[in-house]
Order: sequence, then structure tokens, then C-alpha cells
Amino acid sequence: MRNHTPSSITDTVLDQMAGTPSPRLKMLMEVGIRHLHAFAREANLTPQEWLQFIEFLTRVGKTCTPTRQEFILLSDVLGLSTMVNALHDATAVEDATRTSLLGPFFREDSPEFELGEQISTREAVDPILLWGRVSSAAGKAVANAKVMIWQTSGSGTYDLQEGDGSAIDYRGTFRTDAEGRYFLRTVRPLGYYIPMDGPVGDLVRAQNRLGKRPAHIHFLISAPGFRELVTALYFPDEYVESDVVFGSSPDLIAREKAADPEAPIKGLPSVRFDFTLARAGTADTAGGRVGADPKAVDAAARAAAT
Amino acid sequence: MRNHTPSSITDTVLDQMAGTPSPRLKMLMEVGIRHLHAFAREANLTPQEWLQFIEFLTRVGKTCTPTRQEFILLSDVLGLSTMVNALHDATAVEDATRTSLLGPFFREDSPEFELGEQISTREAVDPILLWGRVSSAAGKAVANAKVMIWQTSGSGTYDLQEGDGSAIDYRGTFRTDAEGRYFLRTVRPLGYYIPMDGPVGDLVRAQNRLGKRPAHIHFLISAPGFRELVTALYFPDEYVESDVVFGSSPDLIAREKAADPEAPIKGLPSVRFDFTLARAGTADTAGGRVGADPKAVDAAARAAAT
Repeated sequence: MRNHTPSSITDTVLDQMAGTPSPRLKMLMEVGIRHLHAFAREANLTPQEWLQFIEFLTRVGKTCTPTRQEFILLSDVLGLSTMVNALHDATAVEDATRTSLLGPFFREDSPEFELGEQISTREAVDPILLWGRVSSAAGKAVANAKVMIWQTSGSGTYDLQEGDGSAIDYRGTFRTDAEGRYFLRTVRPLGYYIPMDGPVGDLVRAQNRLGKRPAHIHFLISAPGFRELVTALYFPDEYVESDVVFGSSPDLIAREKAADPEAPIKGLPSVRFDFTLARAGTADTAGGRVGADPKAVDAAARAAAT
Repeated sequence: MRNHTPSSITDTVLDQMAGTPSPRLKMLMEVGIRHLHAFAREANLTPQEWLQFIEFLTRVGKTCTPTRQEFILLSDVLGLSTMVNALHDATAVEDATRTSLLGPFFREDSPEFELGEQISTREAVDPILLWGRVSSAAGKAVANAKVMIWQTSGSGTYDLQEGDGSAIDYRGTFRTDAEGRYFLRTVRPLGYYIPMDGPVGDLVRAQNRLGKRPAHIHFLISAPGFRELVTALYFPDEYVESDVVFGSSPDLIAREKAADPEAPIKGLPSVRFDFTLARAGTADTAGGRVGADPKAVDAAARAAAT
């Protein structure tokens, strides 16, 4: 036993954790403790600031519900989610479409549609056609790939944010055809504020950040033998450069055409985006989604508590 | 806008936070982001591990109530609380008694007692006398100092952990006499498990740590013109070397005497401990408590949410 000092306490803590059976947990905690302690030391964190940090985290936890995941939102605005995405991309066995955040509005229960159908039930204004091809890194069509799509309405809200969050809209699940093609009707999404009425919104405001995301459409594409692709297409609006969750990137810009002669359905503006899937590798036995259905996170947290 | 990589994303995030008006918040976030990102990079944090981290934090938040502060407990078992304590001690203007954790069981509503009274209402077994002197760094008695004391029962539970947590016991507030003396009767506290039925308990178990604290008695001592002293006395039991929250230290060991001729009340075992207060300095305009009444944290989190 020793009298603790800012320079001695870290090793004392790591000594007590030295018997951790799982090498991976041991390593994660060791790296985490070193950085957590170094943060406090370098910032000379005061007791008052520490308490504000405790209160902030408590409030983030209290804000989480089955339809809202404030910790994922926090991870997003701190760039941690994009960091984990980038680290995951680096483990792919071959080049594929760049990934982007799953975000806090994904839900597992996404209705199935036939190719060409409209996924927005409540709006018909500003419709667009979304289409393209899913192929392997070698350029071969991936037939029957599962393509899950979700986005905001034309007014910038997800279904989870409307009413009591139980209605399903602006999302759907499709299967690519024999040529690996997908196509569907939707509405043009709108850039939006992340939820600004919680602790994460307060932080973003205190940082003088705008708190907006560019208009975008989420994709989750999977097929047997391939790494699951979680990504999004971004519309080049005024927020695309300052995405508050660092999801947008030059590789993922949606290019809209007023009348594309190649489009599978004519008569409306269209966005074509072709996706490339990497073959599954050893890193793909576990999931690669940097995000989750908030309902699933809530259920996991509750299950662990009982 | 750029395509994010593990090495580029940190600067992109810091660029977006560059307009933070408060220099202190800007600095805290910059140091925090650098360490958070470095942690993910060095550990090569996987999406699955990231999600487990999100679930864990969500569960910690859900476990917080007006009588339980799981985030403070987490900070304690990671050694962060002791780190902040040690950093705070280093800002004192003169040498004083070493501090220790406030812990998660402090409460503001502590009943007032006369010197010599017994603070445990429900138990009379194993009584001890606790006494000593509060003085300045120059050795001068501090009269009328407020001495708040709290501890477990002889069975190792705090009042907050008993029944619905509303009954008050094993805690009290005293005032030192003209010679700076305090003395009171209490029961010998017992070492105990930290709450092991929540996410922090799961973590401690996964690390093969015992999860026990040595028997101890908390003190919060204040007087006008002096830095508030938050500390604790530790009984040299079998857990004092492996305190799961790193609160014990050689300077804070309670030495029990079976019959001390100097004791102000005779006929029972006694522990004498003299405390030294440092004069208040510029670092003492804000609070120095590494801990808080869980009810106050809960109220602060709720107030911020409305």
C-alpha cells in the first residue's frame, strides 16, 4: 500500500487489474486506464469538473430509451464512431465501398419491398429514384443481396422521431436482381439537427457547433460470403462539409440527375450509386456495425441488469 | 471534406470544435478527444467492442438512482476518483491531512450531534470512541469546525443501502470545541463489497478483483478560511492493501487502542486521529469534493434535462 500520487496511481490500478483472465479485456482496460488517467493529469481535472462529467454521463444514460440512444450520439459527435468505422475498414481483405455510420436511427424491423416500390408511405412530394448495382471487388454482380435503406422524411425527421416512434416509414428492405441491381422510389431526404434537447445537444451548443447533418440515405448491404457494408450516401448540401457526426466523405456523395437515360424507371430525378462488397475475412466473424437499433441496446442493457 | 482515416479523423474533429468559446472547455475536450481516439487506435477497438462499451455505459446510467451513483462507483474502481483527489491535493497552499474519496454514500442531510454522542441508532454492539483534534497547518486549534462523519454499520452496509434508503444512520455532524477537539461514539465499521449487482460489479468480477473495501470511516471537515477536507480513516483489516477503489493509504490508518488514558471518554476502545486543515487558496473557490450526494447528482441531471 502506498500514498497515491498523480504519477503513481496508474500503476497501482493496473496492478490490481493484472489478474484479468481475458487477455483482450485486460489489454482494453490497460490502454483505457492509461489514457483516462493521462487525460485527467494533462488537463489537471478539478473535482468540480469531474463532478460535472459524472452528471453529464448520468444525464446521457437517463436520456437513453428504446427509441433514442444518446451514448451512440455522443460517440458520433466526438468522432469515436467514425474512428471505429475507419479502423474496421482497415481490416477488410479487399477494397470495397467506404463505410459510414449506422447512426442512432437504424431499426431491425424494416419492411420488405419489391424493386421499384416507394418506401415513403406518407409523402409523395419531391420523389426521387435511387438505383445502382451491388458487385464484388472483382466486379461480379451480387444477386439477391439484402439492401436495407433508411432515411429522413422530406422534412428531416426519422420515423423514430415522429409520434411515439412506433410507426415505420422512410425505410425498407430490398433484394438485388440477377444483375445485382437495386432500384426504388423514395423522397429526397433533408439535412437535420441531431437531437438537440439532450445532454449531447448541450455539449454541441457549448462548442458553437451547428449540430446539423447533411441530407443522406443509409444503406446496410449484406450477402453470404461478403463483409456486411454499412454506409450512407450524402447529398451535397450546405451541411456536407461540417457534418456534426463526421459521416460524410467525398467518396460517398450522391450525384443527382434530372433525367438519366440509363435509369430503370424514367420520369423522375435519380441518384445512381454502385456498391462494392469485400469478401468476408477473419475480422467478420463478429459484427461490423458501428451502431445498433436503440431498442436492442436498451434490451441488452436491461437483460444484463437482471 | 476528406475521407476519414484513423490518423486523420482526430484533427477533423478538433477543427470542428475549434470555435468553443470557453477556453477551459475547449482544452478539456481537446485533451479528452486526443486520448479517446488514441485509446481506440492503440486498442484497435472493434465495432463489437464499441457496441459493448455503449451498452455498458447505458447500463451504468440506468443503474443510477437518487440513492445510487454507479458512474461515481465506476470512476472509483478505475482509479479516476483517486487521481482527481491527488491532483486536488497538489493544489493546496500548505500541507494538510491527506484526502480520500467522498464515495457514493455521502448525503447532505446528516443529523447534528453533541460531542460524545453515539451516531449509530440501531446498534450498540462493538462500540468505539473516535476522537482527535482539528488544527491548522501551523498547529493552532480550529474551534467550531464542522465535522461530518459517515460509515457502515457493524454489518458493513450504509444506511442508503438499507430498506428503501430513506432512514438515516451511522452518520452525524459535530462541531469541534474551543481546543479544536471532536469526540463521539460509534460502532466499528466493517469492510464490505461495493455494490456488485450492477455493471460495475460485473466489470470488477470479469477482472478477478475481490471488489471489497477495507473498514473505514469517512470525514468531511470544514471551517471558514480553510480548504474543505474530505478524507477517511482505514482500519488495517485484510482488505486494506487491495481496496477496490484505491482509497486507503498508509497516512490514513486508524490505530485502535483498547484503553487510552488520554481519551476523553473511558471504558471503550478508542481511535485517535488528528486532522490538519490547509488555509483556503485560489483553487478553493470551487468545490473539492470528489463525490457527491447521489440525490444531488440525480437532481442536477434531471434539472439539466428540463
